[in-house]
Amino acid sequence: MDVNNSRLEKQMKFLSEIEKLKIVYRQNGIIDGTRQENSAEHSWHISLMAFILMEYCREKIDITIVIKMLLIHDLVEIYTGDTFLYDQEKRDQIKEDEAEAAAKIFSLLPSDQKDEYLKLWNEFEERKTKESQYAAVLDNFQPLLNHYITNNQNIKGKKLTKSQIIKKKEFIKNFSEEIWNFAVKIIDDSVNIGLYNID
Amino acid sequence: MDVNNSRLEKQMKFLSEIEKLKIVYRQNGIIDGTRQENSAEHSWHISLMAFILMEYCREKIDITIVIKMLLIHDLVEIYTGDTFLYDQEKRDQIKEDEAEAAAKIFSLLPSDQKDEYLKLWNEFEERKTKESQYAAVLDNFQPLLNHYITNNQNIKGKKLTKSQIIKKKEFIKNFSEEIWNFAVKIIDDSVNIGLYNID
Repeated sequence: MDVNNSRLEKQMKFLSEIEKLKIVYRQNGIIDGTRQENSAEHSWHISLMAFILMEYCREKIDITIVIKMLLIHDLVEIYTGDTFLYDQEKRDQIKEDEAEAAAKIFSLLPSDQKDEYLKLWNEFEERKTKESQYAAVLDNFQPLLNHYITNNQNIKGKKLTKSQIIKKKEFIKNFSEEIWNFAVKIIDDSVNIGLYNID
Repeated sequence: MDVNNSRLEKQMKFLSEIEKLKIVYRQNGIIDGTRQENSAEHSWHISLMAFILMEYCREKIDITIVIKMLLIHDLVEIYTGDTFLYDQEKRDQIKEDEAEAAAKIFSLLPSDQKDEYLKLWNEFEERKTKESQYAAVLDNFQPLLNHYITNNQNIKGKKLTKSQIIKKKEFIKNFSEEIWNFAVKIIDDSVNIGLYNID
């Protein structure tokens, strides 16, 4: 692909680099138990989820912003790998590496798109806008649904407790009572089938 | 998940069923050569591609419609499996099964959303609107990029020829000269590295 260093070539380099998100594996599994879920398919799942559940946002949101954020939110993992939500020490350490990774990957794009997507990634990380809050709700809700429907052996091995999960996820309630009530129901059902410890 | 048969429960049933798209494997591989690409990660890739390349659409398009279409366009494969683009006989046979599969999966949703997404799926299949044409361009362009950057051994085994590929993909030219010119360059580079036969 040695065309001139054109705008389109830059865009294609970015679109080629992101192919690697398909080999960033997460903690949880997929439904046939053959492998772990990767961050590309996770990003697809929450993007479609964002359209289906948008009626539960109390305020009007810009869904295009939410979807762009969800499609790119994990791209930094191409360089840093996926960090387990419940490993707080590692999550704190990795902040700086993730910011560097964001600068690296979005710099492949033409400068206007680099600026746009880097801004969106930061917006997602900061959780100050309602779009980023909705995106964070989905990013945190989808794993609960995935663990439950895949009867996730890999998560079972991690011995997560109900209170540990509630603590991490209860911010969902501030955004949507409906989604949170459903999340609690899934957590309880997951305890019942032995995925999480009761405490 | 035996809550009442509420609207949210229907939405969650749909969002659970689509988990299965992650085990629908396509003909092509991923970058480390360990497995084939699945339709969920393919859908993620073309959705982000749609945002990055939208400036090459000659007319103004509704990008939200395009993204919704791309996120759902392969869901029927949960019931029918992926059909290879170059197996025309099987593709003709499977049309009816795919329509049934679409009705089946979107019927999990509340009726307003069922109508919306079934309409979008049909719009994508018919290729009459500019949104569905752009979606089809990306759905056909991304595999070329994937084959090239993954140096796809699996595709190599299929002995595809350059003219066979050009014939299937040249409709891209009518939508965007820029994307088509880039596609031709990738096809030529792929012939050079032995992915496709010259004729």
